[in-house]
Amino acid sequence: MRCAKCRATAQVEVRRHHTSFCGPHFLEWFEAQVDRAIRRERMFGPQHTVLVAVSGGKDSLVLWDVLLRLGYRATGLHLNLGIGAYSRESQEKCEAFARSRGADLLVVDIPAEYGVGVEGMAELSGRVPCSACGLSKRYLFNRVAVERGFDVVATAHNLDDEAAVLLGNLIAGNVDALVRQAPVLESTHPGLARKVKPLYRIAERETAAYAVLRGIDYVLDECPNSVGARSLLLKEALNLLERDAPGTKQSLYWNFLEKLRPLLRAASEPVALQSCVHCGQPTPSEVCAFCRMTERVARKLQARVAVPAAGREPAAVTSGGNRKPA
Amino acid sequence: MRCAKCRATAQVEVRRHHTSFCGPHFLEWFEAQVDRAIRRERMFGPQHTVLVAVSGGKDSLVLWDVLLRLGYRATGLHLNLGIGAYSRESQEKCEAFARSRGADLLVVDIPAEYGVGVEGMAELSGRVPCSACGLSKRYLFNRVAVERGFDVVATAHNLDDEAAVLLGNLIAGNVDALVRQAPVLESTHPGLARKVKPLYRIAERETAAYAVLRGIDYVLDECPNSVGARSLLLKEALNLLERDAPGTKQSLYWNFLEKLRPLLRAASEPVALQSCVHCGQPTPSEVCAFCRMTERVARKLQARVAVPAAGREPAAVTSGGNRKPA
Repeated sequence: MRCAKCRATAQVEVRRHHTSFCGPHFLEWFEAQVDRAIRRERMFGPQHTVLVAVSGGKDSLVLWDVLLRLGYRATGLHLNLGIGAYSRESQEKCEAFARSRGADLLVVDIPAEYGVGVEGMAELSGRVPCSACGLSKRYLFNRVAVERGFDVVATAHNLDDEAAVLLGNLIAGNVDALVRQAPVLESTHPGLARKVKPLYRIAERETAAYAVLRGIDYVLDECPNSVGARSLLLKEALNLLERDAPGTKQSLYWNFLEKLRPLLRAASEPVALQSCVHCGQPTPSEVCAFCRMTERVARKLQARVAVPAAGREPAAVTSGGNRKPA
Repeated sequence: MRCAKCRATAQVEVRRHHTSFCGPHFLEWFEAQVDRAIRRERMFGPQHTVLVAVSGGKDSLVLWDVLLRLGYRATGLHLNLGIGAYSRESQEKCEAFARSRGADLLVVDIPAEYGVGVEGMAELSGRVPCSACGLSKRYLFNRVAVERGFDVVATAHNLDDEAAVLLGNLIAGNVDALVRQAPVLESTHPGLARKVKPLYRIAERETAAYAVLRGIDYVLDECPNSVGARSLLLKEALNLLERDAPGTKQSLYWNFLEKLRPLLRAASEPVALQSCVHCGQPTPSEVCAFCRMTERVARKLQARVAVPAAGREPAAVTSGGNRKPA
């Protein structure tokens, strides 16, 4: 195989585009793909401040790297989830990346803030770990972005993630989630940050190739709670189809965005949001789901240790980067 | 495992319903499920004449068997596709079944009628075999039903078939096909038969169990052209998810029917049908796709053999059953 640009020996094959690239031209192509997605979907411009959710895994560090290289004003936000060695290593990778790039990194330490990590929250509130974790992430990314005045939150969901979530939502018949599944979610409430997914057109194996070629040091382990997760099985099912017909995931997700979602959206009612009476964050109910969870956790922990009243104070954010955060 | 009805040793497990049955109670449950689908979706009543599309495979002979047992007026229609030994054996199974039940069977012999089988049609018209075959089936089932005054055409598509077709249509973003995918398709033109799928709530392994328990003799081989077919891979991908979470296929398809399809339908335009200028059958264009295909085939065959002008005369139908056809 030869590079489509320079005819040198190809290092990366992009089967769904029937093309291959040498290392340098793959990096160039990759960055152009991300920038094109940002511009076409009007995600943000060079004047906007972008809060990038960084887990320490390959996708989020790749996203942060590309945004910085493209000249966007990208600050990282890492949540320490309190999942043992996995979380310690994840935070270290984010801090090392920030140092190497001279970039700003904000950190919220969930165990320090709420008395327990996301696994403890799950246990004490009767949720499964991935549910408590997902809720905490959505809440804290939004809250930090709004309180610190960022224009937009960027997450590193790639094509494989989006296609798997889509298939899961289709199986569950979750029309609300289908309507909300898009590369850009506009703010519909003063307390709701704008959310964007600049990697939505990039396959997981392409972010992996980018990370390797750029020498980005990321956490190799998956979260220990993700073993046997439904999301991995949904990806496996789609990979089976992708191997037979490269472009399957892209077709599924892009056709959904272009053809099905507009029809679903036109026919469904937007959810009315109000401010949570405890924390002020947007919620369809009186008290937001995160406050309900953390208050339940706080009550159960009271017998053991004294913790701050959950959700009522802004989460403490420390800077793990080089400069003062935005 | 014990039968949910009589506590005898269970012979069939229905995992998606968390239940098991002994042989006799499984047959009872199966027939009740089919009858409930027919009534709930108002497919037809005991007064209506039903043309059942029978391939000789397990699903279609099971459907015919159940309809006869439930007391419906079900006549079989078999198309001999001209695919060598596979087609000969398929027709024999249909004829043997009809004889054993004293049921009416109509047969259209495609090679006798059009000079070549569906594989030859595909080759001479530049289609893939499954496309020429599917077009021939849709056309001939409809035409025979309308010309012979049947109230409805019943096909044996089961839950696995429907879920796989749905996933394929979602990947392809085929909104028109999604809108048309339903257990009942009403007639929207005098030349268009009403179409129903009484097995749409029944899993493939349940029809297999029914066929075995009833001693129905069916063609075991799959069509030789289906090897490596995309539809089999779509089923494999769904089976992977079904094994992990029984009920996945049911959720995907039933949620689509209940929640998504109504929204898509409300937002899309119905296709306007006219009569084909050659054969009179309904079509969105001036000449229907079947006449376009068979005329092309006839032109290419002219140099070799004389064939009747394709599509202009009603297809000759012979009776393979016991009594005069309806």
